[in-house]
Amino acid sequence: MEKRARLPGMGRLESFSDAVLAIVLTLLVLELLPDGAQSPEQLLQDWPTYLAFVTAFLTVGVVWLNHNQAVSRIRRADPTVQVLNLGVLLGASLMPWPTALISAALQDGDRPAQIAAIFVFAIVTVLISVPWLALDLYLIRHRALLTSSSDESWMRKHAQVSAATIVAAGVSVALAFISPLASLILYALVVAVFLVVRLKESVTDPDD
Amino acid sequence: MEKRARLPGMGRLESFSDAVLAIVLTLLVLELLPDGAQSPEQLLQDWPTYLAFVTAFLTVGVVWLNHNQAVSRIRRADPTVQVLNLGVLLGASLMPWPTALISAALQDGDRPAQIAAIFVFAIVTVLISVPWLALDLYLIRHRALLTSSSDESWMRKHAQVSAATIVAAGVSVALAFISPLASLILYALVVAVFLVVRLKESVTDPDD
Amino acid sequence: MEKRARLPGMGRLESFSDAVLAIVLTLLVLELLPDGAQSPEQLLQDWPTYLAFVTAFLTVGVVWLNHNQAVSRIRRADPTVQVLNLGVLLGASLMPWPTALISAALQDGDRPAQIAAIFVFAIVTVLISVPWLALDLYLIRHRALLTSSSDESWMRKHAQVSAATIVAAGVSVALAFISPLASLILYALVVAVFLVVRLKESVTDPDD
Amino acid sequence: MEKRARLPGMGRLESFSDAVLAIVLTLLVLELLPDGAQSPEQLLQDWPTYLAFVTAFLTVGVVWLNHNQAVSRIRRADPTVQVLNLGVLLGASLMPWPTALISAALQDGDRPAQIAAIFVFAIVTVLISVPWLALDLYLIRHRALLTSSSDESWMRKHAQVSAATIVAAGVSVALAFISPLASLILYALVVAVFLVVRLKESVTDPDD
Repeated sequence: MEKRARLPGMGRLESFSDAVLAIVLTLLVLELLPDGAQSPEQLLQDWPTYLAFVTAFLTVGVVWLNHNQAVSRIRRADPTVQVLNLGVLLGASLMPWPTALISAALQDGDRPAQIAAIFVFAIVTVLISVPWLALDLYLIRHRALLTSSSDESWMRKHAQVSAATIVAAGVSVALAFISPLASLILYALVVAVFLVVRLKESVTDPDD
Repeated sequence: MEKRARLPGMGRLESFSDAVLAIVLTLLVLELLPDGAQSPEQLLQDWPTYLAFVTAFLTVGVVWLNHNQAVSRIRRADPTVQVLNLGVLLGASLMPWPTALISAALQDGDRPAQIAAIFVFAIVTVLISVPWLALDLYLIRHRALLTSSSDESWMRKHAQVSAATIVAAGVSVALAFISPLASLILYALVVAVFLVVRLKESVTDPDD
Repeated sequence: MEKRARLPGMGRLESFSDAVLAIVLTLLVLELLPDGAQSPEQLLQDWPTYLAFVTAFLTVGVVWLNHNQAVSRIRRADPTVQVLNLGVLLGASLMPWPTALISAALQDGDRPAQIAAIFVFAIVTVLISVPWLALDLYLIRHRALLTSSSDESWMRKHAQVSAATIVAAGVSVALAFISPLASLILYALVVAVFLVVRLKESVTDPDD
Repeated sequence: MEKRARLPGMGRLESFSDAVLAIVLTLLVLELLPDGAQSPEQLLQDWPTYLAFVTAFLTVGVVWLNHNQAVSRIRRADPTVQVLNLGVLLGASLMPWPTALISAALQDGDRPAQIAAIFVFAIVTVLISVPWLALDLYLIRHRALLTSSSDESWMRKHAQVSAATIVAAGVSVALAFISPLASLILYALVVAVFLVVRLKESVTDPDD
C-alpha cells in the first residue's frame, strides 16, 4: 500500500481551514459575555446557554477532527476540492448563529421560537454536510487526488457519516415539535457517539 | 519551464494573509447574532442579512482562492510585495462593514441609506482591487520575484480581473440608483462567475 | 538520549491550538471597548477591567507557553491526545467569560455577584486543568507517543502543576468569600510565579 | 557571513504571533459596524472612525512587518524571548481599545475625553515598544540566539526605533493638549514614514 507524497498547496488549505474552525470555536464564547454584573441566580438561569455552547463547541470540534482525517488523505487540492471545502467552512462559520438562537429561545422564547432555532441548527448542519458529502463523492471518483488506495474506503465511510448527519438533522426538526430541548440533547448525543468512535479508532488508524 | 524555489519568508506572508482572510470570513456571522429570542417571522424577515452574508462570504472566499494562486507564484516577498499585500488585506478586513450596512439598510433603511450601503461595498471592493492591481503590475515588471516564467502571463490575466472588478464596482453603484437589491445580486453573480471559471481551471492548472 | 522524529499530524494540532489560544488572547480586548466617549474619570474607574484583562491575558499566555513545551514533546497525536487537547482548548476558549464577569462585578456588582464571578473563573481554570492532567497521565502511560525518554519526567512535573492549579482554583473560591479582589490578585500572582519559573528554565532546557 | 540554521520552536512563535496580529487587524472593523441603517450623512460624519481605523490598521501592519524582520533573525526562542514576545503581543492586542476611544471621543466627546483617548493610544504604543526594546537589548547581549553576526546591527537599529517610538508617544500626548486630531495625524505620519523606510530597504535587504 504505497503512499503518494502530498503537494505543497495542501498545507495552505489545511492551515486556512484550521484558522476558520479555530475562530468559530472561539467566537462561541461571545454568547456568554454578560451585559453587566450577574447574580448567582442569573448565572444559574443561563443553563441553556451553557448547554448550547458545549453542544456547538463539540460539534465544531468533531468537524475539525474529521476534517483533519479527511485532509490528511488528500494529496492535491484541485479547484473543485477548494470550492467544496469552502462550502464546508461556510456552514461551519454559521455555527455561532443557531447557538445564539437556541440559547435565547430556551431562555425567553416561546415554543415557535424554540422550534425555529432548532430548525436553523439543522439547516447549518445540512450546510456543513452537503458540500462535505459532495467532496467525499468527488474524491472517491478521482482517486489520483488521494494519497493511497486505502483512502477510498475511508471516504466511502465518511460519505455515509455525512448522509447520516443530514438524516439526523431532519429527525432533530421533527423531534423539536415534541421537545426543542430533547432536540438539542440529541445533537449532544450524536457528537458524543462521534467522539467515542474516534477514540476507538486509536488502534486501527496508527498513521494519523 | 524551470521552477525556482520559494524563499522562507513567503510562508509567513501566506499564513498571515490566510489568518486575516479566515477571520474576516468568520466575523461575518456577527451580523447574524440575534438580540433575543426570534420568532419564525422575524427569522424570515431577515433574508437581506442572509443574502448579504452569502455574497460577502463568497466574495472573501474568491479573494482567498485568487490570493492562494497568486502567492504560490511568488518566490520572494520584498518589502513592496509585503506592503501591497497589506493593502489588499486592509480592504478585505473591511468587508464586514458594508455587509452590515447593506443588511441594515435593506431591512429598515430608506433608499438613500441603501444606495450609500452599496456605495461602501463598492469602495471596499476598490480598496481590495487597487493594491492587488498594483501588486500584479509590480510583479510583471519584477520577474525575478516569480517562481517561473509562465507566472507572468497569469499575473497579466489577474491584472485584467482586478481592473474588471473596479469597473464592476462602478457599475454596481450606478445600478444601485435603480435598485440596490439588484446591485447586491450583481455582486453575487460576479462571484458565481469567478467560481465557475476557477472550477474550469481544474484541468488547465494541474500544479496548483 | 535519542530523539524520535515527530509525525506530520502534530503540525496541524499545534497550529490549530495556537490559533485558538491566539484568538482567545485577542478577544479579551472586547471587554475594554467603550459604549461612547469616555471621560478621564470613567477610564480610571475601569481599573477592575484592566486588572482582569492583564490577569486573563497572562493566564492564557502561560497556557500557551506550557502548551508549546508539552506539544514539542509529543511525536504523534493519536485520537485520545486530540480529544483531550480539544478539552484543554474548550476551557481556554471560555476565558473571556469569567474575565467579563469579574470586571462587571467589581465595577457595579454586589458581593454575591463578585464571588460568583470568581467561582466561574475557578471553574474555567479547572476545565483547562482537568483534561490537561488527563493528557499528562495518558502520555506518561504511553511513552511511544513521546519524542524522548526524558519527556516522561517533564510530563510528571507538569501533571503536578495541573493538580496544583486545581487546588489553587479551590483556594481562590474560599478566598473570594473574604475578598473577591484578593482572589483575582492570587491568580495574577500564580501566573507571575509560573512566568518566573519559566524564565529560570532558560538555562536548563536548551532544546525548546 | 555564515548563517546558523533556525530551530523548530521558532516556527510556532512566528505563527502564534502572526495569528495574534492578524486577529487584531481584523477586529478593528468591529468599531465600524453600525447599529442600524445609516444615512449618507451619518456615514460622512463617521470620518473620525475611518481615520482611527486606518491609523490603527497601519500601526499594527508596521508592527507585523517589523516583527517579521526581527523574528527571521532569531534562530532560537529561549523562555526570555518567548515572554518578551508575549509582552509585545499584549500591547498589540490592546490596539482596538484606543482606536474605539479615539473614534468615540472625536465624534461625541469633549476635549478631556479626546485627550484621554490619545493618552491611552500613547500608553498602548509604549506597552508595545518597551518589551520590544527589552527584546532587542536582550538579543544584542545574547548573540548565540541570532542567525548571523549581521543581525546584531539590525537589532541595534531596531532598538533605536523602539526608543524613538516611546519618545513619539510622549510628544503625541503633549500635542493632544493643543489638538487631539493633530496627535492622531502625527501617528498616521510616523507610520507612513516607517512604510516608506521599509520600502526603501527593498534593495539593501535582499534575503528577507
